Amino acid sequence: MQIGIIGLGRMGSNISRRLMKAGHSCVVFDANAAPREALAKEGATGTTSLAEMVKSLGEKPRVLWVMLPAGRITEETVEGLGGLLEPGDIIIDGGNSYYKDDVRRARTLAEKKIRYVDCGTSGGVWGLERGYCMMIGGTKEAVNHLDPIFAALAPGLGTIPRTPGREGEDPRAERGYIHAGPSGAGHFVKMVHNGIEYGLMQAYAEGFDILRNKDSKSLPEDERFELNLPDIAEVWRRGSVISSWLLDLSAAALVKDPQLEQFSGFVEDSGEGRWTIEAAIEEAVPAEVLSSALYARFRSRQDHTFGEKILSAMRFGFGGHVEAHRPAAAKPNDKP
Amino acid sequence: MQIGIIGLGRMGSNISRRLMKAGHSCVVFDANAAPREALAKEGATGTTSLAEMVKSLGEKPRVLWVMLPAGRITEETVEGLGGLLEPGDIIIDGGNSYYKDDVRRARTLAEKKIRYVDCGTSGGVWGLERGYCMMIGGTKEAVNHLDPIFAALAPGLGTIPRTPGREGEDPRAERGYIHAGPSGAGHFVKMVHNGIEYGLMQAYAEGFDILRNKDSKSLPEDERFELNLPDIAEVWRRGSVISSWLLDLSAAALVKDPQLEQFSGFVEDSGEGRWTIEAAIEEAVPAEVLSSALYARFRSRQDHTFGEKILSAMRFGFGGHVEAHRPAAAKPNDKP
Amino acid sequence: MQIGIIGLGRMGSNISRRLMKAGHSCVVFDANAAPREALAKEGATGTTSLAEMVKSLGEKPRVLWVMLPAGRITEETVEGLGGLLEPGDIIIDGGNSYYKDDVRRARTLAEKKIRYVDCGTSGGVWGLERGYCMMIGGTKEAVNHLDPIFAALAPGLGTIPRTPGREGEDPRAERGYIHAGPSGAGHFVKMVHNGIEYGLMQAYAEGFDILRNKDSKSLPEDERFELNLPDIAEVWRRGSVISSWLLDLSAAALVKDPQLEQFSGFVEDSGEGRWTIEAAIEEAVPAEVLSSALYARFRSRQDHTFGEKILSAMRFGFGGHVEAHRPAAAKPNDKP
Amino acid sequence: MQIGIIGLGRMGSNISRRLMKAGHSCVVFDANAAPREALAKEGATGTTSLAEMVKSLGEKPRVLWVMLPAGRITEETVEGLGGLLEPGDIIIDGGNSYYKDDVRRARTLAEKKIRYVDCGTSGGVWGLERGYCMMIGGTKEAVNHLDPIFAALAPGLGTIPRTPGREGEDPRAERGYIHAGPSGAGHFVKMVHNGIEYGLMQAYAEGFDILRNKDSKSLPEDERFELNLPDIAEVWRRGSVISSWLLDLSAAALVKDPQLEQFSGFVEDSGEGRWTIEAAIEEAVPAEVLSSALYARFRSRQDHTFGEKILSAMRFGFGGHVEAHRPAAAKPNDKP
Repeated sequence: MQIGIIGLGRMGSNISRRLMKAGHSCVVFDANAAPREALAKEGATGTTSLAEMVKSLGEKPRVLWVMLPAGRITEETVEGLGGLLEPGDIIIDGGNSYYKDDVRRARTLAEKKIRYVDCGTSGGVWGLERGYCMMIGGTKEAVNHLDPIFAALAPGLGTIPRTPGREGEDPRAERGYIHAGPSGAGHFVKMVHNGIEYGLMQAYAEGFDILRNKDSKSLPEDERFELNLPDIAEVWRRGSVISSWLLDLSAAALVKDPQLEQFSGFVEDSGEGRWTIEAAIEEAVPAEVLSSALYARFRSRQDHTFGEKILSAMRFGFGGHVEAHRPAAAKPNDKP
Repeated sequence: MQIGIIGLGRMGSNISRRLMKAGHSCVVFDANAAPREALAKEGATGTTSLAEMVKSLGEKPRVLWVMLPAGRITEETVEGLGGLLEPGDIIIDGGNSYYKDDVRRARTLAEKKIRYVDCGTSGGVWGLERGYCMMIGGTKEAVNHLDPIFAALAPGLGTIPRTPGREGEDPRAERGYIHAGPSGAGHFVKMVHNGIEYGLMQAYAEGFDILRNKDSKSLPEDERFELNLPDIAEVWRRGSVISSWLLDLSAAALVKDPQLEQFSGFVEDSGEGRWTIEAAIEEAVPAEVLSSALYARFRSRQDHTFGEKILSAMRFGFGGHVEAHRPAAAKPNDKP
Repeated sequence: MQIGIIGLGRMGSNISRRLMKAGHSCVVFDANAAPREALAKEGATGTTSLAEMVKSLGEKPRVLWVMLPAGRITEETVEGLGGLLEPGDIIIDGGNSYYKDDVRRARTLAEKKIRYVDCGTSGGVWGLERGYCMMIGGTKEAVNHLDPIFAALAPGLGTIPRTPGREGEDPRAERGYIHAGPSGAGHFVKMVHNGIEYGLMQAYAEGFDILRNKDSKSLPEDERFELNLPDIAEVWRRGSVISSWLLDLSAAALVKDPQLEQFSGFVEDSGEGRWTIEAAIEEAVPAEVLSSALYARFRSRQDHTFGEKILSAMRFGFGGHVEAHRPAAAKPNDKP
Repeated sequence: MQIGIIGLGRMGSNISRRLMKAGHSCVVFDANAAPREALAKEGATGTTSLAEMVKSLGEKPRVLWVMLPAGRITEETVEGLGGLLEPGDIIIDGGNSYYKDDVRRARTLAEKKIRYVDCGTSGGVWGLERGYCMMIGGTKEAVNHLDPIFAALAPGLGTIPRTPGREGEDPRAERGYIHAGPSGAGHFVKMVHNGIEYGLMQAYAEGFDILRNKDSKSLPEDERFELNLPDIAEVWRRGSVISSWLLDLSAAALVKDPQLEQFSGFVEDSGEGRWTIEAAIEEAVPAEVLSSALYARFRSRQDHTFGEKILSAMRFGFGGHVEAHRPAAAKPNDKP
């Protein structure tokens, strides 16, 4: 199948590669020449504008995969394609768009009979090799038409043991992709996936924090342990209830650098964690853990919140406590 | 009534003063000479050891108020008094002891027929003038015997409007002290009081944080406001649902220093906030807000948690994200 | 001053009354005849349509106070007024609108030179008597023009002690109203006020929960206390750090009905608590306590979440635990 | 190697079986005859008292594995063994004891030169087949002596991919067991493991809750999705960042019963989740997510908290809101 790929960052480039390896034909575009030329050497057709790309796509309906950062650039690209494509053509947004934007775009493009498919794509730097896990929103017809693309990108059955009782269920899920529902449903499911990801990560983070601070001088001496975190992460990978891919990554990081000294502890967050909380609030679902995981990242990026100063100010007001920043050596939980 | 006061920090000294003002006779002791001598000039009898104090107390049963930091020093003092006193004498622990220690001490002293009363005392630097709010645990007989002391320390009816429907209820509550129950009950109620205090403080802190960051450059320009926090705190004191003494203190702090620049944002916590969470867990009571308030203080005392580094390490593992500490100027929520 | 009041629920009616008492002239409108006629008897001019109201307002610029539930009805009313008013006229939205709606409406109405003022109004059923605490957004000119209205509605200086150091500050805050900033700022400040309110309420709720369950049979016998909650609430009003108006209300409720048997524990939430969290997320402010307070309300309205069933299903998966709903008598924290 | 196994519940019986399969010789004891006799048929030596078991163990030093519920019965058994054993003998507590009890027991038994080893054992109903993940505390000599036992119980290298960079590290971790540190360290690490487990489970639970309630009638129609949860759980197992064993279990449960109707949503918790929070508090580690996960379980076991009634009472106090339990059909998040 022929497909146009717009946006050749690591994700877009690797998606192109995985598709070509499966025998698909890729027309690619990026504002930067380097990734365009790299992929051209591997068999893709490089183009230098959206218009040129659209012209280069001979198969009808045309299929275009937009793989750009969520937000303005994706918005403008989808809008631009809207002016260039013909009825029946399909735009896939494979990035991390907000699902409400998908709902709106699908509605707008439907007026021109252009089909819009949103595809939440998980896999990160490992996708080229492991395959991408995809959650897709759009009409049945469009999603079915694109099946060869999704099948090629997905991990496939692989060696992961089958879930008992799945006989007779949609076989696509086992191969690593699903048609989640109408426009927006794909990105919605991916959004919640990322929300869960934050929660899982924070659960491990707190657990390792408790392990590491178990040697704190503030504890009674015979309840103080110096624990080997790399070994603990490793053993939990082996038959324990909390084994997971995120734990595999933690084990790999800890064995390399047990103090994680190369990391500052400043943690970014992306839109999806935030939108997950907004969705929870819209649905009145209590989402304590997912919210706390997001807030821990917010907090990690500040020296002190203004709120903390308010606390100090009140304490001063009622108790006369003056709280100075203690010298580093005396900080609780601080390693010598 | 004659009473011995052990521990002449700000609380112990002011308690002595308020008692003397009400006509009670105070025998005082502290390891430091200065507060001892200061109170002697105001009419108290200074003593230089527990033994001397016990001897100086002529009225029987003897009444001794221990006003020391919770922990070892209070423990040792109560133990020491246990060896010096006679059946019927009463020890009051007016500090912030863990209520399970009260239960144990009361049981031990009861073997010698010495009576132990725990008194959670709220009022801080304002107590001398406003009076102290007291929550008392012990036997009915002991607490009743001490009533003149508690009545003198309590704020009394004052100008606070009466709660409708309290006719026929125990009049002590309206005067600012209660007999909460058996040994430990006083400190338990005071402990929960402090747990609530943390939660209330954190609620205001987060709210003011949201107000202050409403001018963040990351927001759309016409949704950005530069808000006057001193005026907001003031107006909320006036007929709003969230008026409180803690808000009064916040308003006073903000009008003096709207950026709260004199406060670092490093916030201590005391045992009571922690014990409240332990009590919640023992009772299986979900205490989300009280826990979060405690954790915000823990977090305020660290540059970065080890947990945050784990997060960064995982993100690096699956996405190749490298997270450096951004330069100060680019930090979110940071004021220029 | 002449003013039109649209929406005569409890808030709108009482606002009309307080304004008339201060000598202002009220033209009123409501879809229901009853409150309209009631106010007419007290001196207001009743009208039966927006158009009639606008005609009845002789003073220019006209001033109209919309006091309707946030959402569609307020939106439609403001839009309707937009078609009836003249340049210079002022619409006040005194309800609980989302501040982003204010920003948009002010912009739209500005094209017709109609002035829009948003006024967050706190005071509930007590406002008629205590006065309303108001947080106002709009242009300086419009807000200044309306000063007699706000001054009449506000509590005024009253008996609340002055915050030390406010000399030279805007005197309106002390009288119970502020000009918070441009359009939207009033409702934004009121929104955060309500977010804080949720947090404060939840802090007290958790504290009282811990007190009440201290008699749980699961605890060691000598650490079990049967506490008198009405007395505890009362004593905390008297010189303690956590005294507040919300505590006054709790004390009044508890003395009347110590088990609070008339309340089911099903707790509603309004838009403001939710929007506060959205604002926190937009600003990247960690708002643990305010979020938890909101989620506790969400949870209070469900028998069981689907999430809890997922937990049970996983536990069954790894441990073979079968979790049936225990009979009521055995439920933890359940009173006999 | 010869070993005595005390407590033949599912865990104790399966541990005996796995050890016998590996060629070890098991002397077993349980108060119930049935499991004792079942194991006797499979080659174990059944005994009917601790004293008989100790006599039956011919190899010196004797090795005894206690596999009983944490708490009084384990305590009494360990104490009983203390009176029967000889210097050099080893007691292993393989249950879920509180690590502070281990510290104390090890100290007491050391006076008689009896060695005490704590072993946190993860694996649940799957352990017999998959092997047990073990975290061990005790002296180096004792743990080394027991190595054949641990090696037999552990999963071994299996097919789990090796963590890059583990060359030169302790090889036991890769085989599924570690010597975590001195007495107590094994159960401490297992305790934190379970704390993390709660957090992970709650993250998935909240995510699935948000997915399931996305068809809520309270949402705009084109933002409402009916999502297929079994397919979503399955697809996330395939190349996504959040794949894990707990997700495998969720996928299996959901495909069998997509509404999870067989589960009430009443969720138990065990000591380890609670002790993890206590450890966090002792170390001043902010553990928001682990705490929230615990509290969600507390809340799941109550119809309404007393705290929620306090909220309703306050709302009634300031707003006159009367909150009745809505009829089931109108409950938010409720499925028709």
